[in-house]
Amino acid sequence: MADATTPLAALRDAVRRFAAERAWEPFHSPKNLVMGMAVETAELMEHYLWVDCEASRSVTDDPARRQEVADEIADVACYLLNLCNVLDIDLSAAIETKLIKNALKYPAEQYRGRWTTK
Amino acid sequence: MADATTPLAALRDAVRRFAAERAWEPFHSPKNLVMGMAVETAELMEHYLWVDCEASRSVTDDPARRQEVADEIADVACYLLNLCNVLDIDLSAAIETKLIKNALKYPAEQYRGRWTTK
Amino acid sequence: MADATTPLAALRDAVRRFAAERAWEPFHSPKNLVMGMAVETAELMEHYLWVDCEASRSVTDDPARRQEVADEIADVACYLLNLCNVLDIDLSAAIETKLIKNALKYPAEQYRGRWTTK
Amino acid sequence: MADATTPLAALRDAVRRFAAERAWEPFHSPKNLVMGMAVETAELMEHYLWVDCEASRSVTDDPARRQEVADEIADVACYLLNLCNVLDIDLSAAIETKLIKNALKYPAEQYRGRWTTK
Repeated sequence: MADATTPLAALRDAVRRFAAERAWEPFHSPKNLVMGMAVETAELMEHYLWVDCEASRSVTDDPARRQEVADEIADVACYLLNLCNVLDIDLSAAIETKLIKNALKYPAEQYRGRWTTK
Repeated sequence: MADATTPLAALRDAVRRFAAERAWEPFHSPKNLVMGMAVETAELMEHYLWVDCEASRSVTDDPARRQEVADEIADVACYLLNLCNVLDIDLSAAIETKLIKNALKYPAEQYRGRWTTK
Repeated sequence: MADATTPLAALRDAVRRFAAERAWEPFHSPKNLVMGMAVETAELMEHYLWVDCEASRSVTDDPARRQEVADEIADVACYLLNLCNVLDIDLSAAIETKLIKNALKYPAEQYRGRWTTK
Repeated sequence: MADATTPLAALRDAVRRFAAERAWEPFHSPKNLVMGMAVETAELMEHYLWVDCEASRSVTDDPARRQEVADEIADVACYLLNLCNVLDIDLSAAIETKLIKNALKYPAEQYRGRWTTK
């Protein structure tokens, strides 16, 4: 599978099957899935805990560390896709909608090179 | 855009353009992006804070709340895709790899209907 | 040390000395400390990930698990006290102030037995 | 109240009374309280999201921002104290125990000025 050719639906199906094969649906309440996402995000965060922002760009120069980070990213993504499955939310549509809202909230001219206008 | 037809690469391009139009790349260190993911995940978690697991399945029955949850999910996804862009990690491949590892860690027969074997 | 007799200042001193003995002050920027708090909170959350709210009250019936949870709680507290040290914030005063604000935000009569008035 | 003179037990009593006056004990399962801690920690984290580590030391130079940060710190602390109340864990003892473990894990000579020995 590769991002260039894999529709999100294929990834959603893969995580749906994984849960179904283990009959894990009863555990996959939105409350639990969101909590799981937070746990996995924190494990990802741990890789970047003590480094400065600039140095954080080089953490994954080490191939072993890069694989660990990729695994944590995948864990977060799996929870996210599971949540979309449970809630029957189309993630592509949700992202498209949110980017339009964000474009109105952060006009490009006004926010160029800055994250706040204060 | 819809999950059935949208390859992940198209979503990654959309968030890449959004950042580029604002020249936000300098802010998008992995450390900051992961921290942003955690912040957005917590905003998503807030919707499920005081309800029980079972009741959490009905939180999004209310259409307004459903849109808020979809927006928060999209926010997390945008940070995740940004992070994949910055680290040049193929998310589909990372998910595929991780699901294989998880299948070995949680054999279906052994974990059917249970999240621990203790 | 026991909560009945230990002033917060004594605990703050203990974590200050721990950091000073290792010359860790340069790593203890507020950004890093807050990130560390989030990481430790997630490790605490992991103990409660798959259980329902009611069942979560019994997780620490097991003595070994109880010690693990106590250790994670202590980890969060140490980051919190470190942060108060670095920012020179009096935690007792901050809590007192916040409880007064919260009492105005959540009048007892109106919120008795409910977490929302919607 | 001030850290120099306030024993932790007094702060624990204050948050216990606050919950009791609202009959919020049924909502205060460990699962919910830990989730609440994560939500408040993320709100604290948001103040430090886009700044570098060094710049994060100056965020609270602004008095209004300093009050906001103090409020968020207090929110996290209240959840933490509530959790100790619900689980009947002595926080001072837990911190003392954990600092002893950490001192063995991170010998001062070996970790002076470094957070890893790799």
